[in-house]
Amino acid sequence: MRLRNKPWAKEKIEQYPQYVVALPEQHKGKWSTVFEKNQPLHIEIGTGKGRFVTEMARANPEINYLGLELQQSVVVSALDRLIEAELPNVKLLNVNAVDLPKIFAKGEVERVYLNFSDPWPKTRHEKRRLTYKSFLNLYEEILPPQGEVHFKTDNQGLFEYSLTSFSAYGMLLKYISLDLHKSDFEGNIMTEYEEKFSEKGNRIYRCEVQFRK
Amino acid sequence: MRLRNKPWAKEKIEQYPQYVVALPEQHKGKWSTVFEKNQPLHIEIGTGKGRFVTEMARANPEINYLGLELQQSVVVSALDRLIEAELPNVKLLNVNAVDLPKIFAKGEVERVYLNFSDPWPKTRHEKRRLTYKSFLNLYEEILPPQGEVHFKTDNQGLFEYSLTSFSAYGMLLKYISLDLHKSDFEGNIMTEYEEKFSEKGNRIYRCEVQFRK
Ligand SMILES: C[S@@+](CC[C@H](N)C(=O)[O-])C[C@H]1O[C@@H](n2cnc3c(N)ncnc32)[C@H](O)[C@@H]1O
Ligand SMILES: C[S@@+](CC[C@H](N)C(=O)[O-])C[C@H]1O[C@@H](n2cnc3c(N)ncnc32)[C@H](O)[C@@H]1O
Repeated sequence: MRLRNKPWAKEKIEQYPQYVVALPEQHKGKWSTVFEKNQPLHIEIGTGKGRFVTEMARANPEINYLGLELQQSVVVSALDRLIEAELPNVKLLNVNAVDLPKIFAKGEVERVYLNFSDPWPKTRHEKRRLTYKSFLNLYEEILPPQGEVHFKTDNQGLFEYSLTSFSAYGMLLKYISLDLHKSDFEGNIMTEYEEKFSEKGNRIYRCEVQFRK
Repeated sequence: MRLRNKPWAKEKIEQYPQYVVALPEQHKGKWSTVFEKNQPLHIEIGTGKGRFVTEMARANPEINYLGLELQQSVVVSALDRLIEAELPNVKLLNVNAVDLPKIFAKGEVERVYLNFSDPWPKTRHEKRRLTYKSFLNLYEEILPPQGEVHFKTDNQGLFEYSLTSFSAYGMLLKYISLDLHKSDFEGNIMTEYEEKFSEKGNRIYRCEVQFRK
């Protein structure tokens, strides 16, 4: 994600606490009270400009969504989308995924989405990949038993790596598509990166994996 | 594999017992004595015309190879290759994979290769796929603990299915390539089908999976 200098970003974010939740750690264990309805919570990690999480929220009003994004300058782009969408069941957090267990209680998140995560292709950067075992451990800490991670990417190397990482962690590979846009998967919602890279002719890979306990 | 009527096939096979082993069940537990050297045994299931198993044997003289093939009319094609190659460490069996535990003792086979197995794309034919759980169970019966299956195919649906089947069985996915011919995998030996389908522009998928116990 390109970093633009947006000095007004912080200010704008603070103007919309209903969309970008401030002090997320204070809501640990009671996220349902932050939303209009008490219903399952799905999170997307590295939400970028927020199209996926917004359109998922529109399509699935019976689910609450949180888009987590590290970069403040990117969060404001997603915020614009949320302001326009005016949906009660989607919000953003300007946080780092390493803090997940500080933000969510065990079992509080019902599903984790990872879309077009940064690939970190060099082996010495393996630990930064959002499908590295230390991150899987964080997801396991906030998901219920048999909780699921749904992952999409156009990056072949990251997908190959991630399948072996899920497997080594003991996770179950429930569903795999090696060419999502030509598969019979229904209701796919494209992310910004997905649109860009599939237009270039890249295949999109997708999988659903589950913790075994 | 196209079936040609080859009435002379049986006769020819019987002329070369050093290459197509007759009555394989009689060698259960003592396959090492059938070869010149007592060394690890790798088998390929559905060996077709035998290029893979022959060239693997040439490249790896410290391994014994057996190519298993159901169709007699196909075995004779592989036999022609073996006659020409004159290698001491490769032989053929005209058998059905369902009989594996009758032919090999537990741990007698060190590795199983599956190359371009018939895809059986219809869901109602799932049980016929060589990566269906009942076949994985047969492989487990003849491999040692942590024994490996190495699998290649150009068939996307079969590869997707197989990864989930291996995972559901509890196997570890150790290595995955989603485009073998563009990967850094060294020493690949192409099968007849691999050459044909990669020339058509198909990607080749490959994985190495391991039983966890
Ligand atoms: C390649 S972009 C993909 C954005 C979006 N998911 C899409 O598909 O269009 C990856 C995003 O993940 C964010 N990100 C990377 N590491 C993160 C972390 N540890 N916690 C939260 N967000 C992170 C980056 O800032 C970036 O916006
Ligand atoms: C599609 S061909 C591939 C041949 C070769 N491996 C290649 O890559 O060129 C599959 C082969 O598997 C054989 N086969 C299928 N089911 C089998 C079984 N249960 N036991 C042994 N061979 C089998 C078929 O007869 C056929 O020759």
